[in-house]
Amino acid sequence: MEDIAKELLAGNRLALSRTITAIEEEFENATAIMQQLYPHTGHAYVLGITGPPGAGKSTLTDKIAKTFRNMGKTVGIVAIDPSSPFTGGAILGDRIRMNSLTLDEGVFIRSMGTRGSLGGLSHKTADAVKALDAFGIDVIIVETVGVGQSEVDIVKAADTTAVVLIPGMGDDIQAIKAGILEIGDIFTINKADHDGADKLATELNMMLDLDGVMKDWRPPIMKCVGNQNIGVKELVDKFEEHRAHIEANGELAKRRTERVKNELLDLLSSRIESYIRGKIVDNGKIDTMVEDIKARTTDPYTVAADIMQSMLK
Amino acid sequence: MEDIAKELLAGNRLALSRTITAIEEEFENATAIMQQLYPHTGHAYVLGITGPPGAGKSTLTDKIAKTFRNMGKTVGIVAIDPSSPFTGGAILGDRIRMNSLTLDEGVFIRSMGTRGSLGGLSHKTADAVKALDAFGIDVIIVETVGVGQSEVDIVKAADTTAVVLIPGMGDDIQAIKAGILEIGDIFTINKADHDGADKLATELNMMLDLDGVMKDWRPPIMKCVGNQNIGVKELVDKFEEHRAHIEANGELAKRRTERVKNELLDLLSSRIESYIRGKIVDNGKIDTMVEDIKARTTDPYTVAADIMQSMLK
Repeated sequence: MEDIAKELLAGNRLALSRTITAIEEEFENATAIMQQLYPHTGHAYVLGITGPPGAGKSTLTDKIAKTFRNMGKTVGIVAIDPSSPFTGGAILGDRIRMNSLTLDEGVFIRSMGTRGSLGGLSHKTADAVKALDAFGIDVIIVETVGVGQSEVDIVKAADTTAVVLIPGMGDDIQAIKAGILEIGDIFTINKADHDGADKLATELNMMLDLDGVMKDWRPPIMKCVGNQNIGVKELVDKFEEHRAHIEANGELAKRRTERVKNELLDLLSSRIESYIRGKIVDNGKIDTMVEDIKARTTDPYTVAADIMQSMLK
Repeated sequence: MEDIAKELLAGNRLALSRTITAIEEEFENATAIMQQLYPHTGHAYVLGITGPPGAGKSTLTDKIAKTFRNMGKTVGIVAIDPSSPFTGGAILGDRIRMNSLTLDEGVFIRSMGTRGSLGGLSHKTADAVKALDAFGIDVIIVETVGVGQSEVDIVKAADTTAVVLIPGMGDDIQAIKAGILEIGDIFTINKADHDGADKLATELNMMLDLDGVMKDWRPPIMKCVGNQNIGVKELVDKFEEHRAHIEANGELAKRRTERVKNELLDLLSSRIESYIRGKIVDNGKIDTMVEDIKARTTDPYTVAADIMQSMLK
């Protein structure tokens, strides 16, 4: 296992792949590998790209990656995809991007499925980002499909987050906009050649105004057409601008401290979940408890309290 | 606190409201109330309604509720909404539905925000469902915006789940369809008067065929136009059919056992998270750990292992 970490640090792409697989599949050696890699992290800049389904995030992310490549930077993409019942894992990303970016040695793309526990996923994403970071990649893009709390939690791991929206999203757009307002450092209206782009920009501006709080950074509202590569360079320039801004005012250091804290709590939850699983699930002890609860001779709250008392110091 | 539970059980709507607020806000008396209510649960039928943003779920849910009302049943709606940074809570549901259903004493509607931890939310949703159940409501509809893993976890709490889709969803639809295929007992194409409804039905049918596994219940693909009340009665009939089917073949009992188990694990995770918070977060102990990790004199994996050892028996 030490070999995998050493090879990754020496620039071996296959070792990087195997490391992320070990993280994803929760192989026993994953922790030991990560312990070896950790001292070599902290150099990459991490971007989050999120937004509702259908917003064209994958295409836009690819164009952003190419723009960074043209600037001489290496790029890693971690795409969080919904699980597929067919493949048991990620179904997007890799396949769609096969033609456009995979021949470039300066790009590393990996999809991660939302199979398994969610806490598990955000901690796995964080570890995958660390592996790419230790590998020496300059810019890591974490892309999530959807705008649920899970996705919000995942992009919180980013230094700078861009929210991608498109015109004409229907009824739920108000809700979506409200939910993502607090996580967007930059908003970009993709498919801006469609009807309603200006209207959406106006609405977003109003919501940002309503937000009221005087902030050091007012999230800009950009426009782009990802599949025609229109507005992408401007978006990347804005990423760089935001980065310089939060480096200068100390916000980046603050975000990274917050990230380490959240990741530690996340890792801890995940470890404790495994512990519980080992203590009461795998051995079937939980089944008796469940029967008692179902029979209503007890209740879940009492049982949970009993378990806590038996497990914790 | 006993009074709230007693009053709820006696049919006091205000007590029901206050109970759900206690659950949502994690008031200290919430657990004691739930312990009182638990023996009175298990009678309601729980429906899950999920699907991507913009699919018209809220409108459709209201129409479904009215149809059940016409059949003489009482209905509860728990709408899971994205958080708003303005209100700090749920922003949809209540307001939109104000006019159409709130005058009916046989309907109880409550929105719950995705603020706070996700584990927290699914456990809070489960408790809100139990409160409505103990109150004596016949049919409880849990409606979630989005199709992330979080939403999937939440609708897993349902006896029967309907997935709402609309024609012309764009690139991510393949991913969404795959992700939700396993949770849909019934699919319904809303806004079926729009172009592409037949194409979507064909695609869904193909995916269900590809799924391969011979199942006892082949999820039907329905069509409806929620805001015109077209196809809603047929959908409700299909809910009833599915219910009768899973009652007869033992699947309902199996699902409920699974639900009790998941809810217990969920509750336990939530409780342990609070415990950790009390032990290392609230008192600031975690800050020193975070500084050491940031300085890379240690790593998160080692720190997590140390904490585990100090906390667990």
